[in-house]
Amino acid sequence: MNRAPWRVKLGNIIYNSDTQAGRNFDLFLTATIFVSVLAVMLDSVSEFRAHYGPQLQLLEWVLTLLFTVEYLLRLITARRASHYAQSFFGVVDLLSILPAYVALFLPGAQYLLIIRVLRLLRLFRILKLVRYLSEASILTQALRASLAKITVFFAVVITLVIIIGTLMYVIEGPQHGYTSIPTSIYWAIVTLTTVGYGDIAPRTALGKGLASLAMILGYCIIAVPTGIVTVGLTQAHASSREQRICLRCGLEGHETDARYCRRCGEALVRGVAAPPSILD
Amino acid sequence: MNRAPWRVKLGNIIYNSDTQAGRNFDLFLTATIFVSVLAVMLDSVSEFRAHYGPQLQLLEWVLTLLFTVEYLLRLITARRASHYAQSFFGVVDLLSILPAYVALFLPGAQYLLIIRVLRLLRLFRILKLVRYLSEASILTQALRASLAKITVFFAVVITLVIIIGTLMYVIEGPQHGYTSIPTSIYWAIVTLTTVGYGDIAPRTALGKGLASLAMILGYCIIAVPTGIVTVGLTQAHASSREQRICLRCGLEGHETDARYCRRCGEALVRGVAAPPSILD
Amino acid sequence: MNRAPWRVKLGNIIYNSDTQAGRNFDLFLTATIFVSVLAVMLDSVSEFRAHYGPQLQLLEWVLTLLFTVEYLLRLITARRASHYAQSFFGVVDLLSILPAYVALFLPGAQYLLIIRVLRLLRLFRILKLVRYLSEASILTQALRASLAKITVFFAVVITLVIIIGTLMYVIEGPQHGYTSIPTSIYWAIVTLTTVGYGDIAPRTALGKGLASLAMILGYCIIAVPTGIVTVGLTQAHASSREQRICLRCGLEGHETDARYCRRCGEALVRGVAAPPSILD
Amino acid sequence: MNRAPWRVKLGNIIYNSDTQAGRNFDLFLTATIFVSVLAVMLDSVSEFRAHYGPQLQLLEWVLTLLFTVEYLLRLITARRASHYAQSFFGVVDLLSILPAYVALFLPGAQYLLIIRVLRLLRLFRILKLVRYLSEASILTQALRASLAKITVFFAVVITLVIIIGTLMYVIEGPQHGYTSIPTSIYWAIVTLTTVGYGDIAPRTALGKGLASLAMILGYCIIAVPTGIVTVGLTQAHASSREQRICLRCGLEGHETDARYCRRCGEALVRGVAAPPSILD
Repeated sequence: MNRAPWRVKLGNIIYNSDTQAGRNFDLFLTATIFVSVLAVMLDSVSEFRAHYGPQLQLLEWVLTLLFTVEYLLRLITARRASHYAQSFFGVVDLLSILPAYVALFLPGAQYLLIIRVLRLLRLFRILKLVRYLSEASILTQALRASLAKITVFFAVVITLVIIIGTLMYVIEGPQHGYTSIPTSIYWAIVTLTTVGYGDIAPRTALGKGLASLAMILGYCIIAVPTGIVTVGLTQAHASSREQRICLRCGLEGHETDARYCRRCGEALVRGVAAPPSILD
Repeated sequence: MNRAPWRVKLGNIIYNSDTQAGRNFDLFLTATIFVSVLAVMLDSVSEFRAHYGPQLQLLEWVLTLLFTVEYLLRLITARRASHYAQSFFGVVDLLSILPAYVALFLPGAQYLLIIRVLRLLRLFRILKLVRYLSEASILTQALRASLAKITVFFAVVITLVIIIGTLMYVIEGPQHGYTSIPTSIYWAIVTLTTVGYGDIAPRTALGKGLASLAMILGYCIIAVPTGIVTVGLTQAHASSREQRICLRCGLEGHETDARYCRRCGEALVRGVAAPPSILD
Repeated sequence: MNRAPWRVKLGNIIYNSDTQAGRNFDLFLTATIFVSVLAVMLDSVSEFRAHYGPQLQLLEWVLTLLFTVEYLLRLITARRASHYAQSFFGVVDLLSILPAYVALFLPGAQYLLIIRVLRLLRLFRILKLVRYLSEASILTQALRASLAKITVFFAVVITLVIIIGTLMYVIEGPQHGYTSIPTSIYWAIVTLTTVGYGDIAPRTALGKGLASLAMILGYCIIAVPTGIVTVGLTQAHASSREQRICLRCGLEGHETDARYCRRCGEALVRGVAAPPSILD
Repeated sequence: MNRAPWRVKLGNIIYNSDTQAGRNFDLFLTATIFVSVLAVMLDSVSEFRAHYGPQLQLLEWVLTLLFTVEYLLRLITARRASHYAQSFFGVVDLLSILPAYVALFLPGAQYLLIIRVLRLLRLFRILKLVRYLSEASILTQALRASLAKITVFFAVVITLVIIIGTLMYVIEGPQHGYTSIPTSIYWAIVTLTTVGYGDIAPRTALGKGLASLAMILGYCIIAVPTGIVTVGLTQAHASSREQRICLRCGLEGHETDARYCRRCGEALVRGVAAPPSILD
């Protein structure tokens, strides 16, 4: 599957940031994304829209066209177009231009262009923030290991808020703002998570009693996910240390941020797998 | 205590999900519970009740009769009817049909049918989510080990909210919303748990000072249950690893999610006891 | 310093709960404290006061006289009266009767009788909840070890809320509810601790930006006391295990809740010091 | 770079608190800072300003002149004036007097004098709270080690609030208080951090559903920074123990608060580096 030389060259500029051209391309793109997200935000502020509405819309259209061209170029120059189109950033890139076209038929949809903010996550890769990527990998590993426990916790919390919400609906009733069971469940979530807007609050003595129970419960069970994640992180950290091994002297157990073997000084290879490149 | 062959056969369909018939029965039941919980919720939304009230009530009665028949069948086919009737799910199954009959005399009670949501917890067993059961078992073990510490913590918190609430009642008084000591204690719970509805809030300088103290206290002592649960989880995890032993080579200390001995490859038997079957 | 036999006998009934008489005395006292705290609470509810005001006041006076007699008896029968009078429970016992007499001159002070709830903490000792006392001792030990770190954390938090509060006073000003710097500091505490009453909330864009910063800060730094307490608890637990030693075979490292040596079966002596008795 | 004897002598009084004169100077300064901060606070309370406005302003000017003289003396007597001027406390000392002069042209700026509260942090050094400094050093070390993980966490949280805020703006719209995307992002921060003022709250069913998701998310992901800090603290503690070594017998692994070697009784040298003195 040989690609034409210009496609290989262009692909290197677009996907890699090792060369000067690639770096410039990435920095230019990052700047336009920043400007674009800011433009969408300002467009939603009525004072700005009143004064600079047409200018902001023009800017958005120019940037949308630019991003459309970029998306097409990425498709063309990728080693496998379908591979890119289905990757996380491929989907994000598509979603970053679609709302502008949808807004032609459905006004208001242009605000969804804010999804472009996800494109900024590329910054971590552009800036070669390997250390951050490896830390993100440890975090992800810890969360994945804790997933089963957190699912059990979630099932219990959802069961709790449904039962507490229904009880409050029966106790307080529509005249005190608990207009339906779904609304009461919403209140139970607001209470159990200790957010506490206060848009709905119990008025009867019995309701306040049950609310107090729900609050103390929420105050205590927050300890459960915290404990789960802490244990998961401790283990992920320990296993990430174990994985690192000096290829010269064989010493194991290097710190995550160590770059040289502490015994023989050999440069250490990252134990954390590099994110798969789309070009390869 | 020999049971008639049809009772044994029916019991296998109802209680087990190993056979195709049992699996179909469980899936059908799960679907009806979902529908039933949804119907109770929608019935509480006034717009839905206005349009589909009679249909929803008919549906609820059909499902209630179905669940009543199921409850009776479970009683008849269980190896020991009293054993099932006193088990967690036996009580839940009964509570899942009672409110419908109570509502004939006491309107409004039908909303308590929401308790049916607890029946969904059977899903964990139906779907053979052994991994989740074992994680739930570690969580339960950790919480049980932390129970004494958490009880001490609770006693201190309850003493605190009673004293803080009374002080606020004396300081702010009924004219600022602190209408009685129980109401002030309710406020103290709202504040200490960092929920903060804002339906009652201090107005005087002294009251705001005391409230600030209560908030900082609540902000800090949330660290205590979190620390307790984290330590409990760490120990439960360690002991769950120790309990796992390879029956061929005798190696100990397998990870919770390991399924094969990491030295000899023998399949590992779960160290966590399976939940006791009602049929046995 | 020989005490008359009747004083020794009475002291045993009052301070110990080993004999049947002592146990009866403690249970009777616990019941009266419960009744007393409930009476103070109900007296603050206007509907109850309107109907049962005189009866509640009579009850309070009877109980106050009873507690006064009890306090005097404790003073008389204690091995060292001054020792008891200066102890935690000695001070609590005095504070539990004083407000009633103060209320003769200063109406409203009787609500402070709620301090009697502290007397209920004796329950832990009465019910021989040794396990709870030992857990409380571990908690106290962990918190004491963490005191220096928590003090540093407190100093930083207080500095933060003073600066954030003053900035908000300058940004939002009295017209948006930030009437003075102390009030703004109160708002900063409400925000940083994630309580969020909403009685004061920023209105300007700049204010909302600063408030957002304060919230994210508060959301993150809650991790600090939690981490401190968790580490403290882990160490307290480890050292409490180390302290326990079997007096027959010398095995160390018993679990906190172990009552017999896991190797030789000898009953273990508690490593945690028993709370000092006032009678000794 | 020889300094005149009077400069050395004065510098010792100002920068050190080993001598009686130095200690008196520090205590006097601490008292004036307390008075000054209190004066700024009271000046913002309208009742106080109405009665004691001129006196408070006079007091502030006297203290400002005093602090100006102190700042100049510090510059003159420091071994290297530029070193002091660029240090943390050098900047704080300057910021502590500037607002008073700025307020001559820009009324209201004088409230920024509250920055003087930062000068109180010198107390830790003045009072020779070495233990607190070493604990603060462990905290700082733990937070610095966790910085990369917390940055990743922050990037995810900020991306989340931007997307959730925009979705809510599209769903609820300006008529329900979500007047613009920045305002909606502010609401998302209020919700995700579980602060929950309630000044803006969802009204539509869809909005309440999304808000519920945001709350449960915020409730769970608070576990992440907590876990990060706990792991960081555990490691900082372990490494601080390892760093401490008895200079006589060579025993390692002393507790942070140990002052003597537990084997040979030799006084231990602090493993934590003393804060660099400005005079050296």
